[in-house]
Amino acid sequence: MRLSRYFLPVLKETPSEAQIASHRLMLRAGMIKQASAGIYSWLPLGWRVLKRVEQIVHEEQQRMGHIPMLMPTIQPADLWQESGRYNAYGPEMLRIRDRHDRDMLFGPTNEEMITDIFRAHVSSYRDLPLTLYHVQWKFRDEVRPRFGVMRGREFLMKDGYNFDLTYEDALHAYNRHLVSYLRTYERMGLQAIPMRAESGPIGGDDTHEFLVLAETGESGVFYDSEITDLRFGDRQIDPDDREGCRAVLEEFTSRYARTDDTHDAAAFEAQVPEERRREARGIEVGQIFYFGTKYSEPMGATVVDPEGNRVPVHMGSHGIGVSRLLGAIIEANHDERGIIWPEGVTPFHVGLVNLKQGDATADTACDQIYAALGQAGLDTLYHDGDDRAGAKFATMDLIGLPWRITVGPRGLEKGVVELTSRRTGESEEMTPEQAVTRLAQIYAPHR
Amino acid sequence: MRLSRYFLPVLKETPSEAQIASHRLMLRAGMIKQASAGIYSWLPLGWRVLKRVEQIVHEEQQRMGHIPMLMPTIQPADLWQESGRYNAYGPEMLRIRDRHDRDMLFGPTNEEMITDIFRAHVSSYRDLPLTLYHVQWKFRDEVRPRFGVMRGREFLMKDGYNFDLTYEDALHAYNRHLVSYLRTYERMGLQAIPMRAESGPIGGDDTHEFLVLAETGESGVFYDSEITDLRFGDRQIDPDDREGCRAVLEEFTSRYARTDDTHDAAAFEAQVPEERRREARGIEVGQIFYFGTKYSEPMGATVVDPEGNRVPVHMGSHGIGVSRLLGAIIEANHDERGIIWPEGVTPFHVGLVNLKQGDATADTACDQIYAALGQAGLDTLYHDGDDRAGAKFATMDLIGLPWRITVGPRGLEKGVVELTSRRTGESEEMTPEQAVTRLAQIYAPHR
Repeated sequence: MRLSRYFLPVLKETPSEAQIASHRLMLRAGMIKQASAGIYSWLPLGWRVLKRVEQIVHEEQQRMGHIPMLMPTIQPADLWQESGRYNAYGPEMLRIRDRHDRDMLFGPTNEEMITDIFRAHVSSYRDLPLTLYHVQWKFRDEVRPRFGVMRGREFLMKDGYNFDLTYEDALHAYNRHLVSYLRTYERMGLQAIPMRAESGPIGGDDTHEFLVLAETGESGVFYDSEITDLRFGDRQIDPDDREGCRAVLEEFTSRYARTDDTHDAAAFEAQVPEERRREARGIEVGQIFYFGTKYSEPMGATVVDPEGNRVPVHMGSHGIGVSRLLGAIIEANHDERGIIWPEGVTPFHVGLVNLKQGDATADTACDQIYAALGQAGLDTLYHDGDDRAGAKFATMDLIGLPWRITVGPRGLEKGVVELTSRRTGESEEMTPEQAVTRLAQIYAPHR
Repeated sequence: MRLSRYFLPVLKETPSEAQIASHRLMLRAGMIKQASAGIYSWLPLGWRVLKRVEQIVHEEQQRMGHIPMLMPTIQPADLWQESGRYNAYGPEMLRIRDRHDRDMLFGPTNEEMITDIFRAHVSSYRDLPLTLYHVQWKFRDEVRPRFGVMRGREFLMKDGYNFDLTYEDALHAYNRHLVSYLRTYERMGLQAIPMRAESGPIGGDDTHEFLVLAETGESGVFYDSEITDLRFGDRQIDPDDREGCRAVLEEFTSRYARTDDTHDAAAFEAQVPEERRREARGIEVGQIFYFGTKYSEPMGATVVDPEGNRVPVHMGSHGIGVSRLLGAIIEANHDERGIIWPEGVTPFHVGLVNLKQGDATADTACDQIYAALGQAGLDTLYHDGDDRAGAKFATMDLIGLPWRITVGPRGLEKGVVELTSRRTGESEEMTPEQAVTRLAQIYAPHR
């Protein structure tokens, strides 16, 4: 993409309403624009990251055999009356009356609707196990929306629902989701720690939240420092491998890690040696629940089991805050000059800066490099404007592409360009061909 | 995908509420489930086609240099008060009051919001031309939702907006959209005829609707039969080629073609020889508008022109009914046995039917073919159930995959399988390797 053909409205000034880094940087980098309190438009650069994050979520869900579908945003109230949550949910539910005076709502979550789909179509244990998920816009009418996309009202969420015959099967689904979430977050360059949590309005016995450590997090967290040494890495675990999934759960949740909601000071001291006790803040980026027959029983979602008995299915639900993740990624990856995108989610793989726009040699070299990067399957943002070099660098640093190629007349005389890492600031001279090859290598694990 | 691992709730009976073929077939093929009147969940098979259609729309928009972004579903009422449409829009607008008693609405279209984004960030003619678009869920509170996804209340739409300095520039944007739309529909296996239309609540001077001919269409259409001989084909037209785009507009709109809203019987008779006059029905699948300064003037969306004057920008808006297209495609592509997907939008490239599930030779052959198809980048739905052959064929015919590979013991003895076209019903015996190669060739133009 040539910047002259793109829409990247970066802001020089820091917007006064933004209290945290990610909100400030998303506004300054031209990623979002507020439409009304807690509701944002995703400008082109923000849209690209959002799609990238969503794509990783899809790939990791499908890797574990979970099936994508899509439920609508507007739900009928009567489903929520069946489960008893319509009155219980409170003012965060956006209630709507349509032209025929029917009570509707903008879905904050989908347990009722997916249970309704299940009971309409599934009646035998032979069709289990089943996990369906979707990535859809949700609405929670927060009384005080804040921190940009971190606590917005309209937000994009992946929510998945497992249906199983037995408690043991449902626990495997729970563990399998934990595995998929660890891998999902790491692909985005994040360390998200599973912590024992409270179940809240979803209900349920077992639940873990995933928290990214950040000073601006809304939750206080208490954990054993050994946890931050754990990495999921590139393990390949078959979705049907019960023991493999259980072992990962064990590895990642056996040490003390809790949010302030469930923190137990006595247990913390008893279980964790003093030098490993950590108190910090975290951003919640996902949560998994097992809640058994909480919805299947009142809503009549039953199957015939192998003995011929009709039994309610065991369920769980599993969410990832897709739009919120952009805020969390920036909170964990920025400096005073701007965002530093992890390679897995960057909106463009590389920025191309022409130091002497209008100079025939420099322009031709940039055009050739731009074409070669495209041939290699790399998305490039080519800053082809008339700005001076400092302004071009400042824009590139602000929007945070992990790599920059700088092309100038002096280097071209020697046949070289500069490849610069946004994270380290280090530059290296090499031929244009070498730069393209190097970038293709860097991004190979992220395709 | 193995069917035993998928969620494909096909219905044996024809649902009584469905009046037209596409609605019936989408329900029977397990593509959608009604959540409430005019609001649908997209079950896994439907989701796959929806994503495929959306992907084609994205590719063709970006081919013409249009920039993707995403605006929220919930809009503040005050923007619509600025344009004067808040009161004018009527009961089809889903009006919402949030917990702080602010008037909001579920967007039926986005002229106001995109104009607000433009005026906040663009102030010079140097940043023009600019076309932004998004694919987002919309809501129109139809008094009588019907025909499934064809006239639903919550629906997915691509809407794009051009901003230009002059009338001439905006006309080029109009023509460029017409070009991109012709190509978009043809990639989906549809012939959509641009017809002069009325502007309705969007407003504007120039507008064409795109109609797919179908007996169940809601619009009466009158046209010169020569029009149905036109094909856009594989022409490559540069987005900046004004003459090229204008010539396409000329070619596709110079003959008489109107909906009943704008039909002029006298002109029809005067312009079209009797033997070429056609009267039929059509489904509207898109519309393009030029409306000049209708929104930019009241909302103050101006730029400084080369002479230093501040002038309102010329705008247009351009929509494709993404979810409705699935209905239109099925109306134009089905028979008494079910759907017949065009290759460009099929949910899976090929169905694999094992005639003797549980037979070691047949199972192994199917596993190998399934793997080989995956290696070739082809998505396969492998019917690995215990049903008898007839039931497997009926399911495959109903869901409409364009190609089927049938594997049975008798063929395997000769080293062959059967490749069957859903459209023609013709089968051909060949080795598994030949079948994979043939399918890869068939789908090459659709990647």
